[in-house]
Amino acid sequence: MDTPVRIFVTGGTFDKEYDELTGRLYFKDTHLPEMLQLARSRVGVEIRTLMMVDSLEMTDEDRGIILEQCRKAPQQRIIITHGTDTMEVTAHVLGQAIHDKTIVLTGAMIPYKFGSSDGLFNLGGALAYVQTLGPGVYIVMNGRCFSWDNVRKNRTTGQFEELSP
Amino acid sequence: MDTPVRIFVTGGTFDKEYDELTGRLYFKDTHLPEMLQLARSRVGVEIRTLMMVDSLEMTDEDRGIILEQCRKAPQQRIIITHGTDTMEVTAHVLGQAIHDKTIVLTGAMIPYKFGSSDGLFNLGGALAYVQTLGPGVYIVMNGRCFSWDNVRKNRTTGQFEELSP
Amino acid sequence: MDTPVRIFVTGGTFDKEYDELTGRLYFKDTHLPEMLQLARSRVGVEIRTLMMVDSLEMTDEDRGIILEQCRKAPQQRIIITHGTDTMEVTAHVLGQAIHDKTIVLTGAMIPYKFGSSDGLFNLGGALAYVQTLGPGVYIVMNGRCFSWDNVRKNRTTGQFEELSP
Amino acid sequence: MDTPVRIFVTGGTFDKEYDELTGRLYFKDTHLPEMLQLARSRVGVEIRTLMMVDSLEMTDEDRGIILEQCRKAPQQRIIITHGTDTMEVTAHVLGQAIHDKTIVLTGAMIPYKFGSSDGLFNLGGALAYVQTLGPGVYIVMNGRCFSWDNVRKNRTTGQFEELSP
Repeated sequence: MDTPVRIFVTGGTFDKEYDELTGRLYFKDTHLPEMLQLARSRVGVEIRTLMMVDSLEMTDEDRGIILEQCRKAPQQRIIITHGTDTMEVTAHVLGQAIHDKTIVLTGAMIPYKFGSSDGLFNLGGALAYVQTLGPGVYIVMNGRCFSWDNVRKNRTTGQFEELSP
Repeated sequence: MDTPVRIFVTGGTFDKEYDELTGRLYFKDTHLPEMLQLARSRVGVEIRTLMMVDSLEMTDEDRGIILEQCRKAPQQRIIITHGTDTMEVTAHVLGQAIHDKTIVLTGAMIPYKFGSSDGLFNLGGALAYVQTLGPGVYIVMNGRCFSWDNVRKNRTTGQFEELSP
Repeated sequence: MDTPVRIFVTGGTFDKEYDELTGRLYFKDTHLPEMLQLARSRVGVEIRTLMMVDSLEMTDEDRGIILEQCRKAPQQRIIITHGTDTMEVTAHVLGQAIHDKTIVLTGAMIPYKFGSSDGLFNLGGALAYVQTLGPGVYIVMNGRCFSWDNVRKNRTTGQFEELSP
Repeated sequence: MDTPVRIFVTGGTFDKEYDELTGRLYFKDTHLPEMLQLARSRVGVEIRTLMMVDSLEMTDEDRGIILEQCRKAPQQRIIITHGTDTMEVTAHVLGQAIHDKTIVLTGAMIPYKFGSSDGLFNLGGALAYVQTLGPGVYIVMNGRCFSWDNVRKNRTTGQFEELSP
């Protein structure tokens, strides 16, 4: 419990909300603190929002910021909440550059504010994996853990899967 | 993913429901399949309900059944959903007797059917830990993992903690 | 909208919460303000908690307090949240004594804090009926409105019904 | 209670769902039956889906269909679920043409499938008003009831209000 886990928030489905006036989905604040409170989580964490974007709109510059923040973080263990559409791209950027920290990317298929979100389950898995796995960059979704260099999102099913078994 | 994870259901807060006619909490069926569907879990599991009891009412005989079922299960990895009040007692029975399997006990502070349950988060953590940890008996609650021989539930705070740091 | 509706809170299933430490249902604060906010209700209301009890434990003295408060209230229109088990008894006490105000008793079969409560629906109905009906004492549950002298709770089905059609 | 209430579904925020694959809101099926079951509603209703559209995209032809369906319905009492953006336009079409039935338009500011929807509250109000009001066309939102010829949606606040007090 000494060294807290760092959580970087980048947006994604996790944090989408419904705008009553426009009828559209948008980003306001992250729900991470609320989720950890609901979970009664007793893992020490430090949450920092880096950006609040749909991952389809994430730029190379954005990924540069994430990479730099991971490098600079004093923590050995880092969780990144991220949209699922380009999660594997960011994982690739981090995986090629960082070898001495345990970094877990996670997200959700359904916004947390929707009652039926998978977000709380994924967050529980991400916090468990980030505490047990050795150095490396991983994607944790829906109970499974993938290495950054052997994962893709299947655009038809919406699920993450290995490139090769 | 070849060998599925075995999940044994024993009741506990996880599965409590509200009885409209009597105004009391009671057990009907387990919510585990519903929870795993909500979580979009892609981990192969086999769920079996052993009993549906408040863990304060769990007997030595009940624990004998759980122990025997863990021994007989062909799976190497087992999750047991359990009431939190005597979770450490059952963990002790299993921990002294079984040394070649990874067994994770988990539960919830708030019933799943209450909107504000920690159950989905704990289930996400349990599924992650059971896939990564070596043989042993563990309690996974609220983001943390405890060995069976170094854990107790603090009756004042309601939280699990190490006996010794 | 000039004269706000008075809401008297007396407890009942509506406001039951789950106690994490004891595993029992109990009363803390009323959820009425939270429910009206969720509902985005634009009806002027003044909420006052008279008691927080299971209606099976409501005494004649308690009913005397409710009656006196209804008499003294400057508002013409009053909603009382109440446990369903003895809702008809309180309605009877009020119906025989008060003839110049519109009083609606309502409640819930499932606690509001359970995700699957009928409470918000019943509150919506109660606020509508209390604004449209003439003087009298009524029970509003599950979309229907009953006069105080022609209603009973069916103990087998848990539903309210007319004594005579 | 002999003659059931007719409910016409036209879409609107009420029934928006989140599409996991595209990350957009869309319409699938109506949630009305599910909502009435949750509400334990005991009002006889007949539900019919006329269309599933965002009310910003509702055409004159669509409104013609709604008008014709209201005219042809054997029921005296009709609820129409409708997007809030042009609810007043449809109310105007109906109000000028139908004078012998009680018609209530209602909707939601937040989709029902979002945990925090006002939909259940509005449905409770709509069912109450439709049973008590005389012939006319009304908009019921957030605890209040407006006549079709004295209502508008305030685009800044998102709330319905009278044109003149």
